[in-house]
Amino acid sequence: MSVSQAIEPFKSGELGIVEWLEHACPAGTGPWSLGVGDDAAILQTKPDHELVFTTDMVLEDACFRLIEAGPRVVGRKALAVNLSDLAAMGAEPVGCLVSLALPKSATQTMAVEIMAGILELARQYHCPVVGGDTNTWRGPLAVGITAIGQAKAGNSKRRSGARAGDWIMVTGPLGGSILGHHLDFEPRLDAAKVLSDYPIHALIDISDGLSLDLWRVCRASHCGAILNASAIPITPAAYRETELQHAGVRAGTPLQHALSDGEDFELLFAISPEDGAQLLNHWPETIAKPIHVGECVAEQGLFLREGTTTVPLQPSGWEHGFETNT
Amino acid sequence: MSVSQAIEPFKSGELGIVEWLEHACPAGTGPWSLGVGDDAAILQTKPDHELVFTTDMVLEDACFRLIEAGPRVVGRKALAVNLSDLAAMGAEPVGCLVSLALPKSATQTMAVEIMAGILELARQYHCPVVGGDTNTWRGPLAVGITAIGQAKAGNSKRRSGARAGDWIMVTGPLGGSILGHHLDFEPRLDAAKVLSDYPIHALIDISDGLSLDLWRVCRASHCGAILNASAIPITPAAYRETELQHAGVRAGTPLQHALSDGEDFELLFAISPEDGAQLLNHWPETIAKPIHVGECVAEQGLFLREGTTTVPLQPSGWEHGFETNT
Repeated sequence: MSVSQAIEPFKSGELGIVEWLEHACPAGTGPWSLGVGDDAAILQTKPDHELVFTTDMVLEDACFRLIEAGPRVVGRKALAVNLSDLAAMGAEPVGCLVSLALPKSATQTMAVEIMAGILELARQYHCPVVGGDTNTWRGPLAVGITAIGQAKAGNSKRRSGARAGDWIMVTGPLGGSILGHHLDFEPRLDAAKVLSDYPIHALIDISDGLSLDLWRVCRASHCGAILNASAIPITPAAYRETELQHAGVRAGTPLQHALSDGEDFELLFAISPEDGAQLLNHWPETIAKPIHVGECVAEQGLFLREGTTTVPLQPSGWEHGFETNT
Repeated sequence: MSVSQAIEPFKSGELGIVEWLEHACPAGTGPWSLGVGDDAAILQTKPDHELVFTTDMVLEDACFRLIEAGPRVVGRKALAVNLSDLAAMGAEPVGCLVSLALPKSATQTMAVEIMAGILELARQYHCPVVGGDTNTWRGPLAVGITAIGQAKAGNSKRRSGARAGDWIMVTGPLGGSILGHHLDFEPRLDAAKVLSDYPIHALIDISDGLSLDLWRVCRASHCGAILNASAIPITPAAYRETELQHAGVRAGTPLQHALSDGEDFELLFAISPEDGAQLLNHWPETIAKPIHVGECVAEQGLFLREGTTTVPLQPSGWEHGFETNT
């Protein structure tokens, strides 16, 4: 079914949306024996797999500006951030559930466009929408998604297994995401699929900034890390950000942006030097090759090596919670 | 772990909340090999079970008034509506994921109270919080929960199997929920567990009103139904509502409230007369006994029998979507 077929108009009211969703998200596909339209969705489980669950909500004016992005891009982003979390577990998508909180002023077209953005990406990554909840309220737009993934039993990748001596690698260039990449990034499921064949010690997606997410890996793994400044891949957008320094964009050098801007959604992983070298040798040509940006060390804390000097690095990045100075 | 232990204050910022949640929601319990604190939670699946997924978001001023309910009750309700959906599938809770969108003005105490309300009910029904997402924004409070349940393979109860001749039964009195019950109702998981041993033909929770949810069962089952007016159990609150008729409460007789008020969260099911009689004979004393309120019929549509007359019944109830006259 193509998206253009899926976005036929629906009748007004929740019943209309649910009927439309039942049509757009057919149940009984793959391992799902029941999807949209009942009280819950049913998944037939496989004994040799483990299931992986993640939830992320994108919020108007915190995660996107509706007027700039448009509803279809917002829908896509809502699913993409969840798929990025599945990639960060080394899991393949199985399905997802969608909750919409629509402003009272929202039109049906807006709801359809949000769902079309979700369904387009869902189709691309074989992640059917199997359930949902639609409401209108006096608040701004919120799109909450829970994604379900699967991995071979025991093969999900956690944050906690990095060891001193491991290489730290990232799947792509970093920084400047606020200039647009945060809305159209590709969740790194293809890279994650390749990584799932390697003994990765720790894996995370860079959602809040390289230094903050690396700090999380180190904290969970009880180790430290040294980043090699000259090896860190920096996006053109990070350079542009430094030139612009406009309102709402933090001041900083391109390297500082690469270290602490949020929403890159590249993968960060720790791997033994031997396996890291193997991985680089056998990496498929169709997927961007990971970059070796540093090493794990026994001493706790983060460090930055610039030329011949190594200095402590304060983890910094985007925090979603209460205002804080951490 | 008691709730009072769980609600120790946490450090400011998202890191603080996540650390607090890791403590309050320990991973590695039961079938969960990984919970809060990584990119996603991991569930060890069992081959002879099927998993059931549902998602529901409660929104300030649409589903609750924060100032009246208080954050703990809001948290409890957010989980309770999801547990009610699991009950409506005949599934037992396995775990849940929580997304919070907190107003910028929210205090840490509010966030802790919301989580305490969730955790208290989660503990009562053995439904650990295994993941989440916390954000602040300019909008009102939204609490989104995805609940995961399990049933014996092939034993999940759907809406679609009601047959002409079936008894229609409900697990408790209906109507007037807006006067308070919608905030403190008990999800009918205990009744659902008893029902799971019977060949129930169709099962749903009454979230949007008896007549509207029965209409959904009939639509999914390609049949109709006759409700027996004198058999429908009516809450004292529905009588109070009729007396009050105050602003924001729909006008109507107590019976009309029982037929069309939302958020009763009792279960509605269809069962053969033989099994229905068996069920009543063997129903456990500790759980309120279901009430036989009508029959399924071959003719599509809803009907209401009052004395010796039977009249068509227009399904009506609460719709969450766009404003509509349906």
